[in-house]
Amino acid sequence: MSFNTFGQLFRFTTWGESHGPALGVVVDGVPPLIPLSEEEIQVWLDRRKPGQSRFTTQRREPDRVEILSGVFEGLTTGTPISLMIRNEDQRSKDYAEIKDKFRPGHADFTYWTKYGIRDYRGGGRSSARETAARVAAGAVARKVLGAGVTVRGALVQIGPHAIDRGRWDWDAVEDNPFWCPDRVTAQSWEGYLDGVRKSGSSAGAVIEIVADGVPAGLGAPIYGKLDSDIASAFMSINAVKGVEIGAGFAAAALSGEENADEMRMEGGQPHFTSNQAGGILGGIATGQPVVARFAVKPTSSILAPRRTVTTGGEEAEIVTKGRHDPCVGIRAVPVGEAMMACVLADHLLRHRAQVGFQNPGVRQDG
Amino acid sequence: MSFNTFGQLFRFTTWGESHGPALGVVVDGVPPLIPLSEEEIQVWLDRRKPGQSRFTTQRREPDRVEILSGVFEGLTTGTPISLMIRNEDQRSKDYAEIKDKFRPGHADFTYWTKYGIRDYRGGGRSSARETAARVAAGAVARKVLGAGVTVRGALVQIGPHAIDRGRWDWDAVEDNPFWCPDRVTAQSWEGYLDGVRKSGSSAGAVIEIVADGVPAGLGAPIYGKLDSDIASAFMSINAVKGVEIGAGFAAAALSGEENADEMRMEGGQPHFTSNQAGGILGGIATGQPVVARFAVKPTSSILAPRRTVTTGGEEAEIVTKGRHDPCVGIRAVPVGEAMMACVLADHLLRHRAQVGFQNPGVRQDG
Amino acid sequence: MSFNTFGQLFRFTTWGESHGPALGVVVDGVPPLIPLSEEEIQVWLDRRKPGQSRFTTQRREPDRVEILSGVFEGLTTGTPISLMIRNEDQRSKDYAEIKDKFRPGHADFTYWTKYGIRDYRGGGRSSARETAARVAAGAVARKVLGAGVTVRGALVQIGPHAIDRGRWDWDAVEDNPFWCPDRVTAQSWEGYLDGVRKSGSSAGAVIEIVADGVPAGLGAPIYGKLDSDIASAFMSINAVKGVEIGAGFAAAALSGEENADEMRMEGGQPHFTSNQAGGILGGIATGQPVVARFAVKPTSSILAPRRTVTTGGEEAEIVTKGRHDPCVGIRAVPVGEAMMACVLADHLLRHRAQVGFQNPGVRQDG
Amino acid sequence: MSFNTFGQLFRFTTWGESHGPALGVVVDGVPPLIPLSEEEIQVWLDRRKPGQSRFTTQRREPDRVEILSGVFEGLTTGTPISLMIRNEDQRSKDYAEIKDKFRPGHADFTYWTKYGIRDYRGGGRSSARETAARVAAGAVARKVLGAGVTVRGALVQIGPHAIDRGRWDWDAVEDNPFWCPDRVTAQSWEGYLDGVRKSGSSAGAVIEIVADGVPAGLGAPIYGKLDSDIASAFMSINAVKGVEIGAGFAAAALSGEENADEMRMEGGQPHFTSNQAGGILGGIATGQPVVARFAVKPTSSILAPRRTVTTGGEEAEIVTKGRHDPCVGIRAVPVGEAMMACVLADHLLRHRAQVGFQNPGVRQDG
Repeated sequence: MSFNTFGQLFRFTTWGESHGPALGVVVDGVPPLIPLSEEEIQVWLDRRKPGQSRFTTQRREPDRVEILSGVFEGLTTGTPISLMIRNEDQRSKDYAEIKDKFRPGHADFTYWTKYGIRDYRGGGRSSARETAARVAAGAVARKVLGAGVTVRGALVQIGPHAIDRGRWDWDAVEDNPFWCPDRVTAQSWEGYLDGVRKSGSSAGAVIEIVADGVPAGLGAPIYGKLDSDIASAFMSINAVKGVEIGAGFAAAALSGEENADEMRMEGGQPHFTSNQAGGILGGIATGQPVVARFAVKPTSSILAPRRTVTTGGEEAEIVTKGRHDPCVGIRAVPVGEAMMACVLADHLLRHRAQVGFQNPGVRQDG
Repeated sequence: MSFNTFGQLFRFTTWGESHGPALGVVVDGVPPLIPLSEEEIQVWLDRRKPGQSRFTTQRREPDRVEILSGVFEGLTTGTPISLMIRNEDQRSKDYAEIKDKFRPGHADFTYWTKYGIRDYRGGGRSSARETAARVAAGAVARKVLGAGVTVRGALVQIGPHAIDRGRWDWDAVEDNPFWCPDRVTAQSWEGYLDGVRKSGSSAGAVIEIVADGVPAGLGAPIYGKLDSDIASAFMSINAVKGVEIGAGFAAAALSGEENADEMRMEGGQPHFTSNQAGGILGGIATGQPVVARFAVKPTSSILAPRRTVTTGGEEAEIVTKGRHDPCVGIRAVPVGEAMMACVLADHLLRHRAQVGFQNPGVRQDG
Repeated sequence: MSFNTFGQLFRFTTWGESHGPALGVVVDGVPPLIPLSEEEIQVWLDRRKPGQSRFTTQRREPDRVEILSGVFEGLTTGTPISLMIRNEDQRSKDYAEIKDKFRPGHADFTYWTKYGIRDYRGGGRSSARETAARVAAGAVARKVLGAGVTVRGALVQIGPHAIDRGRWDWDAVEDNPFWCPDRVTAQSWEGYLDGVRKSGSSAGAVIEIVADGVPAGLGAPIYGKLDSDIASAFMSINAVKGVEIGAGFAAAALSGEENADEMRMEGGQPHFTSNQAGGILGGIATGQPVVARFAVKPTSSILAPRRTVTTGGEEAEIVTKGRHDPCVGIRAVPVGEAMMACVLADHLLRHRAQVGFQNPGVRQDG
Repeated sequence: MSFNTFGQLFRFTTWGESHGPALGVVVDGVPPLIPLSEEEIQVWLDRRKPGQSRFTTQRREPDRVEILSGVFEGLTTGTPISLMIRNEDQRSKDYAEIKDKFRPGHADFTYWTKYGIRDYRGGGRSSARETAARVAAGAVARKVLGAGVTVRGALVQIGPHAIDRGRWDWDAVEDNPFWCPDRVTAQSWEGYLDGVRKSGSSAGAVIEIVADGVPAGLGAPIYGKLDSDIASAFMSINAVKGVEIGAGFAAAALSGEENADEMRMEGGQPHFTSNQAGGILGGIATGQPVVARFAVKPTSSILAPRRTVTTGGEEAEIVTKGRHDPCVGIRAVPVGEAMMACVLADHLLRHRAQVGFQNPGVRQDG
């Protein structure tokens, strides 16, 4: 049991506060002989990096990753990989206001209640800065999964405005500041989010993560279900309030006939004619794309004054200044991808432990 | 790592197949000196028992629980509590049809792909019969939580038909075969579900679980979040495709002002003026009711013929006869309650380990 | 964390008290498609069974194992294997004397102190009866290891009387009531132990467990060392006070030259010219036999009156009647074998998870 | 499961190679509001530091610890504590000789066999440098245990030369370069070890660790036994080949009467009249001092030429130059203390989780 460790066999432990000297992650269980460099990890960190558009926090962090252990002459050695990212643009002075007042919607009150102490500077450990460490771990997970498995994410809703799924184009995702797969909707979001930002408010979002190439058979029954682990992984991301797999909540309104994906043979292989299941049945991958979504609440750090109380038990008002994301959901896309990659890497090792890749129907290229 | 174990400190391991001689659960980590009897566990099992109305499977199982260890002279001793439920009404003959054909929407294909073998009788380990063991564990969890914490569940949607939340009445829940908190809607569901049943189809559902009396401070940061564990717990229940906390997916469409619950003082204690958060901030309980929902897909075992393939790689049609629930969501209510109780009991012990109950703001009676 | 679970990937949870209705074990993580029957498990249980000679307890237990789950048509399915052994010859009346008095050298005082309650009948959970469940788990572990790995145990010392290692003969082990590999010493032990038994005293013992065929590379560094896990496994057996690997404590008195096993090539393979290391270097198997020993203290249940105190805080004398082993070390041999088999099976799966069997020097037949 | 993580609730993960840029440890599960500074950790690291006498390696490492997270304004916050120690005196050039040859008695062969790659510089991850991270974790564990529990270690044997236990004096331990509690023997060791050093050989050792003030009731049954965890902890230290508790292996030669510690009342409290058990019965602390020992083999890095093989499968000779300890057992004393402190801190939190400190007989000051 560890509150700061994720995974069982592909396993990482993160540490670090928003305004401490550094943050980092120790990744354990990585198989040996995998090529790994700081550059390969940096690529993914750069996608999450703050300050890349006017729609994310203006905090400037280069977020340079350093490999401190576990890699020798460019290859993993099977020993723990320690990755560190120094905090540089900390500006602690911005946070004097929140030292004694609990920000509504934040973890300020609950950390203080639980621990009797909190590092109030930038949210301390509860800050979304911790997710940089996850993205670094996710980069390692992708190497463990190999080229056969791809994990991609997209923003499918901002505030009340969802994309048109008929216009889904993965190429579009890289072409707008929202990771939006629908170019038309992406454009309309700009105006909407500018309005949100200027009014000092914030917006929620829904993110979809899709994993292609996941071998049928990956996953496990009962309490080690692939979807249970995805649900836990996504719900652990800051500000997430909901998770769904495949048809998700909409499945409740379907009939049994509509919901159950039928099977046919194709090229000598069983395949499914639809994917309401989101690629998972009984906790185990079907071989179809694994499709999962999560909902992010609107940032609680807003300029509008809000009623709150103080650590001393007095009623107060609070205005959260500082450099915040008007929609934290945007930067949650690479974080969601990273968590999905980590869950899959973990299950790849678990599967290898119990059944190897020798069973009928299980692809050998996983 | 164990695929059949749930929890860290309050921890249970289930075993047993649908058509084996018995199923059971070993509950470990229970504090000593708690009064516990078979009768107290049976109460909860009886709520989940099949065959209680025409809306659930007609399999007849008395589901009598036996305590085999861990209780001495009516008190827990701190040693593992082994609970066993014998299978009685097994009728293996019903399942000849599905021996070689994969039922669409079931775990048949994925278990076979993963393991190269499956106990096809009634779904074997993937059957929802396993949830009887969870309900037994949940009964023990309630004893660990004590009288100060109550965990209740309700069905809030069947198929496309949701309740009117304005009519919510906990007393109503016990008065209809659906655990529905809205008497008016409950009545309309009867006709709807009769239609579904007669047409050989099935319906999905949404279940809401509410825990009152959860002490502020329970839970933990990052990867041990209370909501992460709830998400994992609910997603591990058969047929669940989505989980949400508090406002859930609807939070994505709210503004920052609407979403963040404000705080005031009342009777010298901080309290919140709303509960969009569902009682959890930063993974830690706020002291408000913990509110979570999960979506259950429609049963895949339907009478309508469906296209599938065989273990031998041939295309085929399948009709799933046997005694199935037209809406598995109904019997998922006591299962969801049980899983919530287990998560809370686990976090109670975890909290006690790291911080005890001495910190400011943490209630002493948890 | 679980006090009643052993192992990580090959993982078992035991339950049951000495005088409850039954005891059992749930074995999780077992690969699928392994032939397994009750008879194959029973063979090993019979070796541990009480009452087989005048040198072990006269309690009569058939110790029949029942498989309740996880095996279908004679093959493991990858789901948890639940094994149960009913208690039959319980005679609770024998234990009235110890209800309120702590037996010196037993866990009576510490269980009572920790939990405030204890099942005093026959030691309850602290009884060596729990080891029957371990032996059952060990039988499953042997099947996971396959025929290439053999695990054998022998008694090498009773009281102050050690064997002559020059006379070591594995065939002798089955021919005497002590599992002694030295026929000459075995004979002398009969008289010694008869004397101990008649005087109402008891004797300690040292057990040696040897595993042949362990593939080089099995094990892991730092805190998952093969020898760490063996040490933990053996020390968890009732009455064990010491564990050593290879040369063990004697290594402290060797010179560096004497201790470090040299290497040569033989048949194109590296091999060692001696085995002071006991087959493990840096926590990882060398490919030589894994050799480990553990010391068992003399049974504390003796007829001689001993000074003690009562639960009420009064000084008292106690005489432990009942049917006890004059040397519990004898029946610890099959238990030690079982624990070694479980540790190796666990490491086999762990190794498969992280590195498979593709690396240079690792045998493919593990 | 993690090969580089120790403990369950008080839990640390180490990382780093002998000749990488740094090594470190992340300590998770620490209760909040405990005062902690770099100076308090440094005290213990200084005891383990190399180069303090001619009897330890001449590598010069300041071993300065940096706290990177988890401490705010001098107090622990309940979040993970990341500690880092930079490597400074690395001299990789010394290790060219061992790049392709396996050093007898080292982990070179087994790491290479397991992983197919190894950081050969100074032993990489298998180097005893990793134990610096343990000592840092142990310093935090001591703070968790509080002033009521003291953990002290001593060297009780070097090569074949044991101390005279009648001359045991804890004050002596700090006065000689061996942590020897017997001043007379310490003096004789100087000459002995000078001889060993000059001849290019090495010597083994036995270390005893004693914990005073451990509350009765700490520990747990079956597989979470206090002595099992101590055995695992000690066996995980580099070069350890044996572990014993209390009378240890000598218990095998005692009679039941000699071995079982009797009990009397004293000042209204139960106490024991002897401590053959080493303070642990049934895996749970009795309230007496916890006494454990471990045996360290002689350093395998010796100047005498030894026969070995190469990674290419050729026979060769090797002479291990470099800066090595003639008796690694000396520097193992603070490491053993640290591991004992970590085990106790972990059990303190586990005990608090399951039973709190409210039971009869359990001291409240733990």
